[in-house]
Amino acid sequence: MKSYEVSDQLMHYIIDHKLKEGDKLPNEYELADIFQVSRKAIRQAVSLLVDESILEIRRGKGTFLTDHSKFQDPTFRAAYHIAQLDRLIEAMELRCLIEPSCAACATRSPQPMRESIQEGFDLADQEHESDAYYRDFYFHQKIIECSPNSLIRSILPIVSYSISHVMKLEPEIVREQVRFDHQKINEAIQNQNEEEAEQMMLSHLKKIHSILISMRKDRSI
Amino acid sequence: MKSYEVSDQLMHYIIDHKLKEGDKLPNEYELADIFQVSRKAIRQAVSLLVDESILEIRRGKGTFLTDHSKFQDPTFRAAYHIAQLDRLIEAMELRCLIEPSCAACATRSPQPMRESIQEGFDLADQEHESDAYYRDFYFHQKIIECSPNSLIRSILPIVSYSISHVMKLEPEIVREQVRFDHQKINEAIQNQNEEEAEQMMLSHLKKIHSILISMRKDRSI
Repeated sequence: MKSYEVSDQLMHYIIDHKLKEGDKLPNEYELADIFQVSRKAIRQAVSLLVDESILEIRRGKGTFLTDHSKFQDPTFRAAYHIAQLDRLIEAMELRCLIEPSCAACATRSPQPMRESIQEGFDLADQEHESDAYYRDFYFHQKIIECSPNSLIRSILPIVSYSISHVMKLEPEIVREQVRFDHQKINEAIQNQNEEEAEQMMLSHLKKIHSILISMRKDRSI
Repeated sequence: MKSYEVSDQLMHYIIDHKLKEGDKLPNEYELADIFQVSRKAIRQAVSLLVDESILEIRRGKGTFLTDHSKFQDPTFRAAYHIAQLDRLIEAMELRCLIEPSCAACATRSPQPMRESIQEGFDLADQEHESDAYYRDFYFHQKIIECSPNSLIRSILPIVSYSISHVMKLEPEIVREQVRFDHQKINEAIQNQNEEEAEQMMLSHLKKIHSILISMRKDRSI
């Protein structure tokens, strides 16, 4: 994970836990454990937020939230959200280049692998909002894992990152679109229709990309 | 760089420097400096070669080449080359998905960026075999840097890795092909012909991919 991604997560942690000015953050070891990254990554992320005067390191005492007002400032929050949207848009662009070929590959994969995609789809089709993110990721993950190319499979963290963040943005619109698209992609894979699988995956990702682009426009105004 | 990539480089270092059984390798600090990677990466790479009984760590004395016979053994060298070809083939597959879109992007980039691509091409067209790798990489690098997407630009190390290794394999055939293809790609970019640039880049990378696939077949027999 890149340091700006970890600092995003730190920002979310601060917002989610309603931390206030002067509050102390968990220590480096605890944060590394919470976000499942190295302590070095935590140090870099903290340093990014220190540069923005959001956090302050007090020697021997720990890391403290200095300027809570920023989180109340609509301009800052808007800028923060736009920066986040930019990263999501980049992630979706990369996925548009790579994942359609994974879907094509999935149509040619052995029966057990196609079954696990079906299973991933069936799971996501059930209505349990609590783990919706995980189930959406599971479906994409199973498709990407069909690629015999380990470098291509290495985009999984980016896929996971973009799915989790997109779902936080506009869950309702996205959910409906996603369910419909996944059905089409799954059908094409199960019918071993290579061209259709590739096209459906591309159109699925491009739709989410467009939604993000229009959200970015709305927020920049 | 992944540890197996570093261990590949270590193997090449051993071959290039004609090290013999019992010879001592440079220390961790020196190796990290030679390959421009962290000491941790060196330790992991050394440990991979220790597992294969190629290197031996003698406590307090350093790392030594134990089994030089392996490098003379044609079966071992063949297996080693095939593994390396597999990694190159994977890298070329990923590049086929990503770089054509970078070439398309380059046709739409501002004049100074297109000029730096022209410059990269002109440089590569001169005949100085000593830095041929760097000049080939420079041309691709300038094209990829036209992408405004930082995630897409993050494939640069993979591009550098695959160019340096492909050039070690069959420099003559590849050189001729590469020079001709680069000319076509550069023309399309300078003429701002988006579709042509995208297609030419794809066909360029696919040709190298096919050369690698046929080399792999020859060596597997």
